[in-house]
Amino acid sequence: MERTIVEEVIKKVGQKVKVCGWVHTRRDHGKIIFIDLRDRSGLLQVVFAPNFAPAHELANSLRSEYVVAIEGTVNARPEKMINEKIPTGKVELVGEALEILNEAKTPPFEIDSPQDAGEEIRLKYRYLDLRRQRMKNNTIMRHKIIKAVRDYFDHLGFLEIETPVLTKGTPEGAREFIVPARLWPGKFYVLPQSPQQFKQLLMVAGMEKYFQIARCFRDEDTRGDRQAEFTQIDVEMSFVSQEEIWQVVEALMIEVVEKLYPQKIISQKPFPRLTYAEAMAKYQSDKPDLRKDKKNADELAFCWVIDMPMFKYSAAEKKAVAVHHPFTMPNLEDMAKSPDEPLKWRAYGYDLALNGSEIWGGSIRIHRRDIQQKVFEILGVKQEEIERRFGHMLEAFSYGAPPHGGIAAGLDRIVSILQDEPNIREVIVFPKTGDNRDLMMAAPNIIGKKTMKEAHIELASDVENNETVEETATAD
Amino acid sequence: MERTIVEEVIKKVGQKVKVCGWVHTRRDHGKIIFIDLRDRSGLLQVVFAPNFAPAHELANSLRSEYVVAIEGTVNARPEKMINEKIPTGKVELVGEALEILNEAKTPPFEIDSPQDAGEEIRLKYRYLDLRRQRMKNNTIMRHKIIKAVRDYFDHLGFLEIETPVLTKGTPEGAREFIVPARLWPGKFYVLPQSPQQFKQLLMVAGMEKYFQIARCFRDEDTRGDRQAEFTQIDVEMSFVSQEEIWQVVEALMIEVVEKLYPQKIISQKPFPRLTYAEAMAKYQSDKPDLRKDKKNADELAFCWVIDMPMFKYSAAEKKAVAVHHPFTMPNLEDMAKSPDEPLKWRAYGYDLALNGSEIWGGSIRIHRRDIQQKVFEILGVKQEEIERRFGHMLEAFSYGAPPHGGIAAGLDRIVSILQDEPNIREVIVFPKTGDNRDLMMAAPNIIGKKTMKEAHIELASDVENNETVEETATAD
Repeated sequence: MERTIVEEVIKKVGQKVKVCGWVHTRRDHGKIIFIDLRDRSGLLQVVFAPNFAPAHELANSLRSEYVVAIEGTVNARPEKMINEKIPTGKVELVGEALEILNEAKTPPFEIDSPQDAGEEIRLKYRYLDLRRQRMKNNTIMRHKIIKAVRDYFDHLGFLEIETPVLTKGTPEGAREFIVPARLWPGKFYVLPQSPQQFKQLLMVAGMEKYFQIARCFRDEDTRGDRQAEFTQIDVEMSFVSQEEIWQVVEALMIEVVEKLYPQKIISQKPFPRLTYAEAMAKYQSDKPDLRKDKKNADELAFCWVIDMPMFKYSAAEKKAVAVHHPFTMPNLEDMAKSPDEPLKWRAYGYDLALNGSEIWGGSIRIHRRDIQQKVFEILGVKQEEIERRFGHMLEAFSYGAPPHGGIAAGLDRIVSILQDEPNIREVIVFPKTGDNRDLMMAAPNIIGKKTMKEAHIELASDVENNETVEETATAD
Repeated sequence: MERTIVEEVIKKVGQKVKVCGWVHTRRDHGKIIFIDLRDRSGLLQVVFAPNFAPAHELANSLRSEYVVAIEGTVNARPEKMINEKIPTGKVELVGEALEILNEAKTPPFEIDSPQDAGEEIRLKYRYLDLRRQRMKNNTIMRHKIIKAVRDYFDHLGFLEIETPVLTKGTPEGAREFIVPARLWPGKFYVLPQSPQQFKQLLMVAGMEKYFQIARCFRDEDTRGDRQAEFTQIDVEMSFVSQEEIWQVVEALMIEVVEKLYPQKIISQKPFPRLTYAEAMAKYQSDKPDLRKDKKNADELAFCWVIDMPMFKYSAAEKKAVAVHHPFTMPNLEDMAKSPDEPLKWRAYGYDLALNGSEIWGGSIRIHRRDIQQKVFEILGVKQEEIERRFGHMLEAFSYGAPPHGGIAAGLDRIVSILQDEPNIREVIVFPKTGDNRDLMMAAPNIIGKKTMKEAHIELASDVENNETVEETATAD
């Protein structure tokens, strides 16, 4: 018999069906055994009574999280037995045949409990944590948000273009992960902090409207609610003004909220705009929380912060560094007015804040080789290093680079705010701990000596745990 | 004035418009200068004549690939001047005002030429190569294929779930890239060959219907038409038969072809099915090309090859290895019939071939701990190693793993066949060379000493080129 998912059972009163799923709970009332069966679509009450003896007998051995297939007849429940709390509460299934597809040890925490287990144990057994309604819902809504973002950009004629993960370093301020190149002894790939250079090169290539849901990597020390790998909504456009970029993003955010979170209220449309100077003067923050009620998760206060500064003085580096990144276009009027005081220059740079979090940030980019060269000089990068690190960008700009600009969002943050979750780990299906461990997979881990040798590297002499292991080949 | 894209100009005869783009070609007829302007949507003829003197004068300095903004009036062309070869061939733009947005050096190869430059030069200047119509079309069709795949799975209730890139090794036969873990001296992340373990764990988590357009990594030696990073359509389902998986994939492939390639003919529907034994006996191939005319790119001959063998003897390893991977479910009848002759076992494993290329491959998976343990034993993996490498999978299987199976496709290969391209590099926007170099970015490359030290690694003593470099901080 073909399987029926639980939420469809309610349409089949009086019919025979087969359902599959997990034993969510079990209750015995005298000789009658009730189970709530859970599948991806919901919960369904199943009744095993002695008149179907083999099924009833086997049902005695059912424990929480056993995997079962059950055949039986769908009955309407009597009025007083209706359970309004679940969508299938008007019916129950009479269990006539039962097959145990797999058994289950007692889980380390209760799937059914609203009480949270500790985060370490939840992450180690993420495959059990994800069975809980809250996590399943986060996973579903994340999928729907990303789908809505893709549909939106596709509809506007943007192309989603995949950019490399094994690439070269980018000058965006964070420490980067490195990958030894086996075929090129002594050389390394770098995992991208963002597709910044690629998306600008796509503009040079004439693609004009690019977006990507892109995996990005930052090897940061534990710093608040960050992840070593995270997901970015990445956008770049040619022949555009700041205004056009803002409008594309603003309409996207409104569409996502209205489509998927109709109960939420956007406090001001169009989104208010503050210059960086205004935001700092009025709110002492470049991502002010403009909600009337700061505890109201259903109030969404978006706010543009524009005219960001181009450079700032870094005490650590004892020189100017870019506030955003060195590909940002400085304000041309400021350059003309104060050519020798770059710390006074504003940039064509902007952020979008939501309820006090920065969710989008971007800028108009430099498309002229002379201005890009000037910015690198202000940053104190020597000509040899400019050529080595950015020569390919400068060269690309000399073959007809169009004026262009873009913006990018932290998708994990957006989902966590919309789902009213306290941190992004709750909306990442397989997150890492704050110190970059995957507790479920036990990664990072020691690797085989042969692997390290092939990568032309050795552990540094100060590494104490230098135990390495051999691995048996298991597949062709 | 707001910009009009080239393909919209034809709707605005008699009106003033502004267009932006690149100088594709320039021709002078006496004092009249003609240019073909190229933007993302197509080509448009623009005429500069002396009656608009400043524009005409500036137009004299235009060279190929200059970036320009032009304002003017759209004129219908006289009947005999109509160019049927381009969609805007019935109009031309009278160039009344011209702004040069950026100049361009002479490109290293002609954008307009159907003649191919050498691949090395094309890859180094990929941002110019992508300006060519053929590459732009590949990029657009790749986007459309991926969008159609996502729409299809979303419509069927599958969730797209992102799985980690920084993870642990998987036993799928290829060499893997490693990433030193700065916070965990002596330990490494591994880049995934596929999301295999994660998608199986998602089935344990009760997600039931998963898909992902996933980036995967294999550190292989130059071996035919492979890439170090590639894109996989990854699918997994619970409570399914092989038959159901085949039908999901078959309907997907038919939908993509009929929607995006209506000129192509699928030679047989439903797709023919051969057992592995039949395919080898009849065609001496496990991916037979069943086209009537092997040179016909518009004929698509899909063919299922099923009942793949579970193990094969590896002369190199002097023992059995898994033909697919060790999570594949052996045929239970074969196990019962020949318990001591695993090389005779078939697996519930299957491939889908298209015109002689394997494009999809998958299997029903082991969901029972005892069978998984048995397979590892046959593969000669010792208990200690089983626990260390796969303990998390075996443990997950003990908490109520549902029966499940899945399949995955090489997306790059599918796009290259549908686009009639000779290799996958033509349909990957930023590919690497056969020896894993990104010629445009100059990756892999040497890295700073500080970076290596922080990663707790050193170059192996046999590495000759151990020059390393310092990097100036450029961003906050």
